[in-house]
Amino acid sequence: MDRKQPYFDRVCALRERMEQTGIDAYLVLTDDFHASEYVGDHFKCRAWVSGFTGSAGILAVTKNAAGLWTDGRYFIQAADQLAGTGITLYKSGQPGVPTLSAYLAENLREGQCVGYDGRTVTVDYAKGLKEALRAKNVTFRENVDLVGQLWTDRPALPEQKIWLLGEQYTGKSRARKLTELRQALEEENAGAILIASLDDIAWLYNLRGSDIAYNPVALAYTLVYPDRAVLYISPKATEGEAAEALAADGVELRPYLQVYEDLKKLEKGTRLWADTGCINVALLGAVSRDVELVDKPSPTTLAKAIKTPEEMENMRLAHIQDGVAVTKAIYWIKQQRETQAFREGKITELTVSEKLAQCRKERPGFLELSFESIVATGPHGAIVHYDPTPETDIPIQDNTFLLMDTGGQYMQGTTDITRTIVLGTVTGEMKKHFTAVLRGNLALGGAKFKHGCTGVNLDYLARSPLWEMGLDYNHGTGHGVGYLLNVHEGPNGIRLRDAGGKVGTVLEEGMITSNEPGFYLEGQYGIRCENLILCKQAEKNDYGQFMAFETLTMVPFDVDAIDPALLSDREKTLLNDYHQKVYETLSPYLEPEESQWLFAVTRPV
Amino acid sequence: MDRKQPYFDRVCALRERMEQTGIDAYLVLTDDFHASEYVGDHFKCRAWVSGFTGSAGILAVTKNAAGLWTDGRYFIQAADQLAGTGITLYKSGQPGVPTLSAYLAENLREGQCVGYDGRTVTVDYAKGLKEALRAKNVTFRENVDLVGQLWTDRPALPEQKIWLLGEQYTGKSRARKLTELRQALEEENAGAILIASLDDIAWLYNLRGSDIAYNPVALAYTLVYPDRAVLYISPKATEGEAAEALAADGVELRPYLQVYEDLKKLEKGTRLWADTGCINVALLGAVSRDVELVDKPSPTTLAKAIKTPEEMENMRLAHIQDGVAVTKAIYWIKQQRETQAFREGKITELTVSEKLAQCRKERPGFLELSFESIVATGPHGAIVHYDPTPETDIPIQDNTFLLMDTGGQYMQGTTDITRTIVLGTVTGEMKKHFTAVLRGNLALGGAKFKHGCTGVNLDYLARSPLWEMGLDYNHGTGHGVGYLLNVHEGPNGIRLRDAGGKVGTVLEEGMITSNEPGFYLEGQYGIRCENLILCKQAEKNDYGQFMAFETLTMVPFDVDAIDPALLSDREKTLLNDYHQKVYETLSPYLEPEESQWLFAVTRPV
Repeated sequence: MDRKQPYFDRVCALRERMEQTGIDAYLVLTDDFHASEYVGDHFKCRAWVSGFTGSAGILAVTKNAAGLWTDGRYFIQAADQLAGTGITLYKSGQPGVPTLSAYLAENLREGQCVGYDGRTVTVDYAKGLKEALRAKNVTFRENVDLVGQLWTDRPALPEQKIWLLGEQYTGKSRARKLTELRQALEEENAGAILIASLDDIAWLYNLRGSDIAYNPVALAYTLVYPDRAVLYISPKATEGEAAEALAADGVELRPYLQVYEDLKKLEKGTRLWADTGCINVALLGAVSRDVELVDKPSPTTLAKAIKTPEEMENMRLAHIQDGVAVTKAIYWIKQQRETQAFREGKITELTVSEKLAQCRKERPGFLELSFESIVATGPHGAIVHYDPTPETDIPIQDNTFLLMDTGGQYMQGTTDITRTIVLGTVTGEMKKHFTAVLRGNLALGGAKFKHGCTGVNLDYLARSPLWEMGLDYNHGTGHGVGYLLNVHEGPNGIRLRDAGGKVGTVLEEGMITSNEPGFYLEGQYGIRCENLILCKQAEKNDYGQFMAFETLTMVPFDVDAIDPALLSDREKTLLNDYHQKVYETLSPYLEPEESQWLFAVTRPV
Repeated sequence: MDRKQPYFDRVCALRERMEQTGIDAYLVLTDDFHASEYVGDHFKCRAWVSGFTGSAGILAVTKNAAGLWTDGRYFIQAADQLAGTGITLYKSGQPGVPTLSAYLAENLREGQCVGYDGRTVTVDYAKGLKEALRAKNVTFRENVDLVGQLWTDRPALPEQKIWLLGEQYTGKSRARKLTELRQALEEENAGAILIASLDDIAWLYNLRGSDIAYNPVALAYTLVYPDRAVLYISPKATEGEAAEALAADGVELRPYLQVYEDLKKLEKGTRLWADTGCINVALLGAVSRDVELVDKPSPTTLAKAIKTPEEMENMRLAHIQDGVAVTKAIYWIKQQRETQAFREGKITELTVSEKLAQCRKERPGFLELSFESIVATGPHGAIVHYDPTPETDIPIQDNTFLLMDTGGQYMQGTTDITRTIVLGTVTGEMKKHFTAVLRGNLALGGAKFKHGCTGVNLDYLARSPLWEMGLDYNHGTGHGVGYLLNVHEGPNGIRLRDAGGKVGTVLEEGMITSNEPGFYLEGQYGIRCENLILCKQAEKNDYGQFMAFETLTMVPFDVDAIDPALLSDREKTLLNDYHQKVYETLSPYLEPEESQWLFAVTRPV
């Protein structure tokens, strides 16, 4: 095995700095300063030191050892990328593998010092770590960015220009959002709220940015007081009209990192509202001990999840355009099978990925993809977070499934759709698996329930057809989706249990959640059927307020993968009604041959 | 309205005592000293003072006012019983009605004193009350039984003889249960555990008693230490063999109320395990402040819920006997319709209730009923907790539903069953409602799920057929059931959310839960279909451990109430398979004409 010298050297250099600063264990985490799911290049410290580029993982360096903890999605990739770096891979959750906390508790000596850049660590994470190490009387240095000191060609902090969304898109003005937030502050008797989540800030100020791939947000913090609102953001990002429009609503602009200074100046006795699950250690560290912390989710988080009528209507339009793009791409892929290029293996996962992106780019209102496209043929489909790269790319295989989990950002909203299609023919067993996944999707999408239910009450619907056969999928059934914002947003979701064994957030009218049961057979194939579903009120009567879902996604399921004999009458009705709606909605946007094909593949089963 | 002089006088006498003792508001609660669901006559202080005999309600008396707070089950009864007593009824949960805490917070003056008999108040309840009154700087007198001072002919504390259950019934010896409890103490590093729940104590020591109607428990407390076990119980209750058998297992016997003295003597620094949701204020008050409290559910609560293989097998046998009794009674009722007595209105709810009890008494192993029998014809069925009394009793009506929710205590276990049968014929609308309730019961009973699910994940199954029609029932779907113990026991249950918004207790093999969806149309009729279901392991494979239910209850559903056109193929199979099993199981125990009838009414639909 060849030594990967750059990473080897970087770990050594880090150790030198650690020695100079009296730190015995230094942690390099994955987050940016906002606990974002995706991070900009400036924040990729862990990748720079270790060479491991996965989206989750923590590097821990001590005098004599270096370890990287990551989860099951990245075991293979991490093993490959860490080989020759001298860094040991710790496979989180595997039997016998200690957690990072347990490792540190075992290997640190009484009174030693742990360091990290507190801006990249949430208050809740640090709290857990400190509790685990309490018995060791370990000290913490939480404001040291040692990697920043070493990384000479580090990309600058992004400061892309922001743009503002008009009320025709958001349905609620910045002024009204601020008024509602201030009402919440008043009810909580809070003197200020600190918000660090980038999508909450974008939502509150009706602004969008380009500082992070896929997520149209800008690097910013905000402090909102009963009588002031300060947005901390690069002056470059707001140059011109944006600054004027924000000023007109009384929003004061200050430089991005100024928030750390301003937090120090909060008056004694102020009740500061801040969600310790979302704010970093350095932010809280800047706050005086005389400030009283109100640790609760920001009211913007729930308000953002409950889409306005305008956002709901726009989301429908975005899904029509997205449905046209994906349906055109599926038609193209199905046609490719007849070509010489396909037979010669020239149609690969990346070809399909690019075709999907191309089809989306042609749609009005399209801005960018909403996450890294997953296009996985045959066995690649069983790798839940597989996204093809030039190194992994293979030709689309015949007589198996092709799984495509992709999405777009449109002016009218955010999409996220998975379709699993058949190239050639598949076995009865494969159809049985596909039909079970589809039945779960139909049951959840067709659910009617009482207001007060959460995703925990409904998850069973999506899993039951698989559970009946002794099968399952090892991921959640649904996540919340933003409006021209992050494709993964809280607090709504559909899963078996929420954090802390809670039943989670009540499903309210206007919440959009994914509905994505799947089935994965390692080394063989993967199946996932994903629609976005909008929670709506149904009738209200003496028995209460009833709720139902409206399916936003408009793309047919592949009838070649379905065994109709396994569908109940109700399931057939749900599928046929959906397919009829898909045909009627999309056909006006399609070429005649595409429309003819769509008519055939949406025929009643 | 006539004044009800005795209750009027008792409230006045209470006020005099309050003045003498410096108490400004005195609360009379419903609990015994163990937070039992049913209480013995000795504990019925609230009924003695106020005349209100419901199973839930709190009386609060101040210098100038007296109020009784109770819930929706008792609004009518309480209004009737309180009329003329001078006591105001507060309907808990109704719009504009203050809670008791809010009422006291509003009406007490700064520094006034609240009193109650702390033995009848759980620590958790008192905590909530104190928090609500904190701003008023109210003081508390928690050890004053003012009613006890006034109630001269108060029934004595019961001290019925206990009896011991052999291992053929429990499957686990007293010694082994004590060993396992002590292992839990050791893991928690606890020096003692205090248990006050009567069913936990009965389970731990494999003893049963007769101090409380329907619940075969004895008044007792216990303190278990790593090296000792003390059972606080009346010496009369253990005279003879029981004392010897308990002594043989190292169980020390002390008088019932001695526990309050012994708690005072706990050594400083002892870690005392006690569940503040189950122990009363006086018990905790006896404990020195130098004792460290471990506030967690007693390990006996979960262990009791997970039945041993012997208990499971016995429960099956108990349900066969109970099924024979109830099926014979249903046959008898159906036959009565052809009689002169029925036509003359001489077959009443109480007649049926007595017939059911009689049929049970004839079964081997039967001991007593497991709760107050609900037999409700027509509109009475819509009153969820209706149990007929001579005052409310009416003849069984024709062409409507008869709802019977009854159960028995057998040596082999505890039963709880609801059947809703048709006398004459019912309308299509009534069949539609019945069929929806039945479909919910079948779906839940037929559920297959992954280990890790709780009742919160499964509740949807029972409600969904009603929700689809915009209907619902206003009670939980299922409660845990004891083994020859309380018909309602925790921690397992099937409901939409658990206390504190938690997902509740994971369903484990050996847990028995009721499966009782219903539908109630006020003034017209009530429907409930209740079976007990035993949680069992199904297959274990790469996808995890799967679980399923075995239905213990063995009584047919009334096919005269079912519209088969509304059943899916799967539901028909579930129903027909169940009915076939019922017929095969019960027919050997029936008379020829009963058996012939059962064959007909269990025919496939």
